[in-house]
Amino acid sequence: VLDPSDLPTVADIRAAAQRLAGQAVRTPLLNVPSLDRRLGFRLLVKAEPLQRTGSFKFRGAYNRLSLLSTEERRAGVVAFSSGNHAQGVAAAAALLGIEAVIVMPSDAPAIKIARTREFGAEVVTYDRQREDREAVAGEIARSRRAVTVRPFDDRGVIAGQGTIGLELAEQAAAMGAALDAVVVPTSGGGLVAGCALALEAESPSTRVYSAEPAGYDDYARSLAAGHRLANEGAPGSICDALLVQRPGEITFAVNRERLAGGVVATDEEVRRAMALAFDCFRLVVEPGGAVALAAALAGRIPGAPQTIAVVASGGNVDRYRFVEALEA
Amino acid sequence: VLDPSDLPTVADIRAAAQRLAGQAVRTPLLNVPSLDRRLGFRLLVKAEPLQRTGSFKFRGAYNRLSLLSTEERRAGVVAFSSGNHAQGVAAAAALLGIEAVIVMPSDAPAIKIARTREFGAEVVTYDRQREDREAVAGEIARSRRAVTVRPFDDRGVIAGQGTIGLELAEQAAAMGAALDAVVVPTSGGGLVAGCALALEAESPSTRVYSAEPAGYDDYARSLAAGHRLANEGAPGSICDALLVQRPGEITFAVNRERLAGGVVATDEEVRRAMALAFDCFRLVVEPGGAVALAAALAGRIPGAPQTIAVVASGGNVDRYRFVEALEA
Repeated sequence: VLDPSDLPTVADIRAAAQRLAGQAVRTPLLNVPSLDRRLGFRLLVKAEPLQRTGSFKFRGAYNRLSLLSTEERRAGVVAFSSGNHAQGVAAAAALLGIEAVIVMPSDAPAIKIARTREFGAEVVTYDRQREDREAVAGEIARSRRAVTVRPFDDRGVIAGQGTIGLELAEQAAAMGAALDAVVVPTSGGGLVAGCALALEAESPSTRVYSAEPAGYDDYARSLAAGHRLANEGAPGSICDALLVQRPGEITFAVNRERLAGGVVATDEEVRRAMALAFDCFRLVVEPGGAVALAAALAGRIPGAPQTIAVVASGGNVDRYRFVEALEA
Repeated sequence: VLDPSDLPTVADIRAAAQRLAGQAVRTPLLNVPSLDRRLGFRLLVKAEPLQRTGSFKFRGAYNRLSLLSTEERRAGVVAFSSGNHAQGVAAAAALLGIEAVIVMPSDAPAIKIARTREFGAEVVTYDRQREDREAVAGEIARSRRAVTVRPFDDRGVIAGQGTIGLELAEQAAAMGAALDAVVVPTSGGGLVAGCALALEAESPSTRVYSAEPAGYDDYARSLAAGHRLANEGAPGSICDALLVQRPGEITFAVNRERLAGGVVATDEEVRRAMALAFDCFRLVVEPGGAVALAAALAGRIPGAPQTIAVVASGGNVDRYRFVEALEA
């Protein structure tokens, strides 16, 4: 059962925005009018591949680490992640002078492991088939008395991600755009929860949707059912950042009351979205980061919205995977 | 002989910045600290691929067209270009309600013709073997009394491009960075002239360099000689946007007195720079747009500067050309 003090509020997000000022990139909200004419709706793209570490994860990590006590900072932090959360925690820890251990699967994209080390973190790998990452991380945390930084089910992390929602509302207003719908790549649900909280306060008529890879639509199904459901099977997906099996407890408590629903996109649609982001926005988007864009381009957002903002949540993609998308 | 009234001033650039506010994207100045540690200097990248139309050319075109009289606006404008200038003029004209005719070779890639039309311009094609594009454009200009918008040798165009220099100075200062050197992709020299004028006013200790493809270093050689020289031969280059044969008259009058020199990069270095921009900045940069980055990465900037800003001037690149760079 959730303690009410676990739940993030818009005040947390505003406080996070203050902490992140000058540390996180205020990423641009991109728009291409000639593309809008072709699509028949106005498409705004929040360009988080340009964020520090190449994804939105830096925001939540930096905010969470800023909330640690002096004693906790001294002991260091542990995180488990296949990629973007690892880099976010590693970079935030380095900036704040905190030691970080990152537990990653040994078969994670090579570039993500290399980058995490480059940020100064210690990387401990585990065998995804035979070991449980939470157990590995838990053991490290116990032995070092280190705080485990969870990737999404954490009030401080959600508050950091929510700064994207605040920026979206401000930037859209400055462009004279009324946001009918905002679509957000979703795995554990922290990013979409933060965005939903921020937009509820700043743009209450905006409908917020989770976007997931086809076959990993646990969030969409959970929202429809009103309670948390896990994925059934694991058909595989190029969206390596979005393969969490079920909604977070905290994130679902936030999202259940605030999201208009969940949408999906296939790998093929994701590749097409990556190629369109290349052609029209000159932006490198990783597969998981392109799933909201893919769903919008596929016409999956209900109610024929006139203006849709999608979060392009990250750009950490291996060259071969990107080439594959351009050549599809 | 140049009329002094043809020469742009920093006041022109400040006025252009006012006109462009809300129309042009204030593109981010990107920095990746972990890359800086690897390189041994601080590298800042001005991300003009995120500009409207995918290159800096929109700035100069919009400013130039804003300066037209009511009568001139009514008659429309003509430009000849098969690339970024065409799109910049077409998009600016559409925003300002001005008719634009773009003269393009009939064998230009269909996609470039289609994109220019998508911005609302009328495309007139000519036979590259049998017709002279300036004569074709001149005939259209005469018959319609339309103003020809030159790609670089024009006071209003240079002033528009110079807004990049103003933004660079402001953004670097906000990051606490003292700009030792700024390196700018150069063909006719309008972009670097505008940047040099702006930085002379805003950051007078900054050294400004032109960057060109190897074999097309007419600007570097002209700066060294003190007078305008043409390229000798045309060895070919992937930098399709940078193949003008000699410095502009107005641009050279500005640059001769202000640039610290000219640097070059080979096609191979340009491909590596495009791949690095993909990996580290998640940005799509076209070959010509990557030449300043390539020169900086190759260690060509004299005096071992601690902080180097490069302009990534555009991102309009065919997929096959980009894939080639990633696979090099």
